[in-house]
Amino acid sequence: MTTFSPKSSFIILALIISPSVSATRASKFQAEKPCKRMVLYYHDKLFDGTEKDKANATSATAANASKLSDTNFGMLVVFNDPITIDDKFHSPPVARAQGFYFYDRKDTYTAWFAYTLVFNSSEHKGTLNIMGADLMTEKTRDLSVVGGTGDFFMARGIATFQTDTFQGLYYFRLKMDIKLYECY
Amino acid sequence: MTTFSPKSSFIILALIISPSVSATRASKFQAEKPCKRMVLYYHDKLFDGTEKDKANATSATAANASKLSDTNFGMLVVFNDPITIDDKFHSPPVARAQGFYFYDRKDTYTAWFAYTLVFNSSEHKGTLNIMGADLMTEKTRDLSVVGGTGDFFMARGIATFQTDTFQGLYYFRLKMDIKLYECY
Amino acid sequence: MTTFSPKSSFIILALIISPSVSATRASKFQAEKPCKRMVLYYHDKLFDGTEKDKANATSATAANASKLSDTNFGMLVVFNDPITIDDKFHSPPVARAQGFYFYDRKDTYTAWFAYTLVFNSSEHKGTLNIMGADLMTEKTRDLSVVGGTGDFFMARGIATFQTDTFQGLYYFRLKMDIKLYECY
Repeated sequence: MTTFSPKSSFIILALIISPSVSATRASKFQAEKPCKRMVLYYHDKLFDGTEKDKANATSATAANASKLSDTNFGMLVVFNDPITIDDKFHSPPVARAQGFYFYDRKDTYTAWFAYTLVFNSSEHKGTLNIMGADLMTEKTRDLSVVGGTGDFFMARGIATFQTDTFQGLYYFRLKMDIKLYECY
Repeated sequence: MTTFSPKSSFIILALIISPSVSATRASKFQAEKPCKRMVLYYHDKLFDGTEKDKANATSATAANASKLSDTNFGMLVVFNDPITIDDKFHSPPVARAQGFYFYDRKDTYTAWFAYTLVFNSSEHKGTLNIMGADLMTEKTRDLSVVGGTGDFFMARGIATFQTDTFQGLYYFRLKMDIKLYECY
Repeated sequence: MTTFSPKSSFIILALIISPSVSATRASKFQAEKPCKRMVLYYHDKLFDGTEKDKANATSATAANASKLSDTNFGMLVVFNDPITIDDKFHSPPVARAQGFYFYDRKDTYTAWFAYTLVFNSSEHKGTLNIMGADLMTEKTRDLSVVGGTGDFFMARGIATFQTDTFQGLYYFRLKMDIKLYECY
């Protein structure tokens, strides 16, 4: 019959506890294993200043481009853009993206975004707050999901942008691959 | 007299470890159990452009509204607003709110905020950084506390806005219910 | 020879588990023990509007100062600034800082920053997203690192600013001491 000493018990404990704690940490933050993922399309129709564009436009220039370059450096746009689950502008939006971007490079186009995804549907109620650089010359680029509310209470993660279409300044569409690694 | 086998020890360990770890996580992030809570009032007195308003005004228009709508779409305001613990504008401020908001909806008023609460009192020294959508048509709306410094080192949480009074563009007051879920 | 009861086993377990969990937490978030630290220099050369400054300038005014004060209250600048590891403007940049700042105080100068550090070197690829108040009258001031991507996947931390030189509006240099407390 086996009897048991405190010392051997201690060793068994250590073996059990350590993997348990580190496994929890690691799984929470593996890039390929988000706890929640959504692929969304963002449509930006910049107001062209004409009366007839008022109904369709979803964003407007708040600050004009500087004279520093001919790449719109400093142009700042406020948007309230529809978010759809396919790439059709007229599909029913599942969320709104409310925020702003500005152009910030002299020799080509790059932008910087900060915005809130506002969900108010039967599927999701709540918001995700996102900010980061949109390095438009890269095929994909990552921004940070820095917080969330409602169904996305205290969420954090990554929003990967991909340009889906770019028709000059007045219409572009981004594919936003939202991956959350903190879900509560 | 009871003797003890490694196998039974293992089972007891598993029972003890699992609840312990999950309890720590859960209590950190239950919406009704912040680790720190502050109810504050934010006063915004927008500069009206007159000489005599310079002393009192706490914010100024940085970018004018676009012509997209008559709801100030695109109007961007920079503020340095007093934060008080009651709803009196002239109460001694316990913090300043430094940041900006802009209006971002065509058919009604909504706004988007990013700002820092700067505390420099005997009670608190440090900052909280906050961003999110202010969906003014909702009774309450949640923004994200995305970071903190000083006494609020590495904090995260939720800032719930409620309109306390809204006297047109030139004065409004928000009740900000700050709930932190990460405190260190 | 010692025999072992479930009760004594329980007590030993509790002693082992508790310190283990709290040690993990604490070490992650001690201000003096970041998991990653970088001291960087940020150079901002604001465009003065002249043709010959276009090549050198790294930032441009997007919104002019309001008339609220003579301290540039409301002036908003978009930047794409070189980041170097020493204080020389012409050193090879190790990153770019893309974002904006604005001035936000009536009686002296303070500013508010939100930006992305974009790393694309052999040493680091990825971004850090940062926001907070730059209380320029303080010797050092802390902003929040609210997220990261790539090599800085899901990072959080503190960015401590120190003014290294300030030559009026058109050139200033900040020492940015970046301390990450969440590294994955």
